[in-house]
Amino acid sequence: MSNIEHLVVIGTGLIGGSVALALRRAGCVERITGVGRSAANLEEAVRLGIIDDFDHDIKKAVADADMVLIAVPVAACDSVFQSLASSLSAGAIVTDAGSTKQSVMISAAKYLKDVSRFVPAHPIAGTEHSGSAAAFAELFEDRMCILTPNEKTEAKALAKVTALWQAVGSHVEVMSAREHDDVLASVSHLPHLAAFAIVNAVGKNDAAFRFAAGGFRDFTRIASSSPEMWRDIALCNSLAIVDKIDALQAELKALRDALNDSDGDVLLEKFKAAKQARDSWLDEYGEKL
Amino acid sequence: MSNIEHLVVIGTGLIGGSVALALRRAGCVERITGVGRSAANLEEAVRLGIIDDFDHDIKKAVADADMVLIAVPVAACDSVFQSLASSLSAGAIVTDAGSTKQSVMISAAKYLKDVSRFVPAHPIAGTEHSGSAAAFAELFEDRMCILTPNEKTEAKALAKVTALWQAVGSHVEVMSAREHDDVLASVSHLPHLAAFAIVNAVGKNDAAFRFAAGGFRDFTRIASSSPEMWRDIALCNSLAIVDKIDALQAELKALRDALNDSDGDVLLEKFKAAKQARDSWLDEYGEKL
Repeated sequence: MSNIEHLVVIGTGLIGGSVALALRRAGCVERITGVGRSAANLEEAVRLGIIDDFDHDIKKAVADADMVLIAVPVAACDSVFQSLASSLSAGAIVTDAGSTKQSVMISAAKYLKDVSRFVPAHPIAGTEHSGSAAAFAELFEDRMCILTPNEKTEAKALAKVTALWQAVGSHVEVMSAREHDDVLASVSHLPHLAAFAIVNAVGKNDAAFRFAAGGFRDFTRIASSSPEMWRDIALCNSLAIVDKIDALQAELKALRDALNDSDGDVLLEKFKAAKQARDSWLDEYGEKL
Repeated sequence: MSNIEHLVVIGTGLIGGSVALALRRAGCVERITGVGRSAANLEEAVRLGIIDDFDHDIKKAVADADMVLIAVPVAACDSVFQSLASSLSAGAIVTDAGSTKQSVMISAAKYLKDVSRFVPAHPIAGTEHSGSAAAFAELFEDRMCILTPNEKTEAKALAKVTALWQAVGSHVEVMSAREHDDVLASVSHLPHLAAFAIVNAVGKNDAAFRFAAGGFRDFTRIASSSPEMWRDIALCNSLAIVDKIDALQAELKALRDALNDSDGDVLLEKFKAAKQARDSWLDEYGEKL
């Protein structure tokens, strides 16, 4: 990709730090400035060679940037846009890494004078760790990154942000923010909420837990995710998630009806359809996971 | 344990075969006869040293047995009890390995002249493989095995079956069949049905699947289980499972209501409770899984 002269990474944690490391490794960035609230984390990031310098003041930090990456939790995006809007230089391009996209685009539209150089992104990658010490250059390799430009997005900005995410190793997909939020509600947000709901439903009988086995451990792993992060994601994508909860409740009702009717044919048909869908998904995409 | 002179294993697959191997290794069985429908599987079991001989006729096979292990799918238990009832010798003890217990006890009561020497068991162990070739002596080591005797069960038979499951390496727990079915509905049957339901709910939008990541893979692993086996388990424990589906529907409704109300406090409280329950379960029992 063409060079980035001054990249400002707002939120120098696992995601922001890993982007910085990967761009540095790809040799396409001159200077990286970190922005964050924790001085300890930013000092650690300098020590680890992730960033060159840091600033606690977003306004000051972005004034000279030609590329800004917002890598804060989705609930914090709104205030970040508010802070940086007035001091962003005319040609600066902005991208982000948030898990929901319509909410981020609403924040951008609210504060940016010109949204044409904001290209929303969602790299589908992560680990259960956080902080700059958890960052590594390979995090995005062979992973998907979804960009959700709209009709106002400048082609040059889209090209530059596409090149950025490709430079860190991702496969870039483009879709609308609405489609993104719907797809992620299906494959990520619903499963997470359902895992929390199942653990709570089962947890009413604490004694049962000691008889849980490996299947339960795998099935509920995502229920050990950060409650705060998931509250924020859920609130930022509530419409699409409600829709998916309705679909899940309809499927559960169909199983319940079949159980009440002792209808083995319906159960078998439902279980076979699910197994087939999952197995073919795994055949096609499983080895990349 | 005191010696078993002649063990008959009805269903010489992963479970039955692994019990046979483990008892042989423990040196507490003289002769093991396998019973099954597949000649190829039984011949393989002889070749692998799992059984000494085999018979396709249950009646003939059990006539001389002092211990019978029924290790067939739960839906087949009823016809197995019907077949063996008339030729079981007076002192013979029977145990099983089915995933549901009330249904098996109903079958036993229907056909056995004397249920006092039937001691229902559920070893909580398994792999995704099946058949005698998948059997191994260590399958039950350090796993739980739940026994569900009732007031008719003879103390001597209970002691002998307890010793059998301890000899294969299991930790034996005793509870009522009703409690067993309730506990397993919570920690195993509900999660499996929910996994099938979620894959079906998401599968309505096939395109979404390609954006699924590792969390989705783990969360839905159990949806790749055998549809036939799960149909049978679901039908055999339908009352308890319906109860758990209702509990899950209530939890999903609470999340849905909170999303509609943008109530982040309720979401956070629910997610925290689930994470805490799962994390403490994992701390206490996780390393045994």
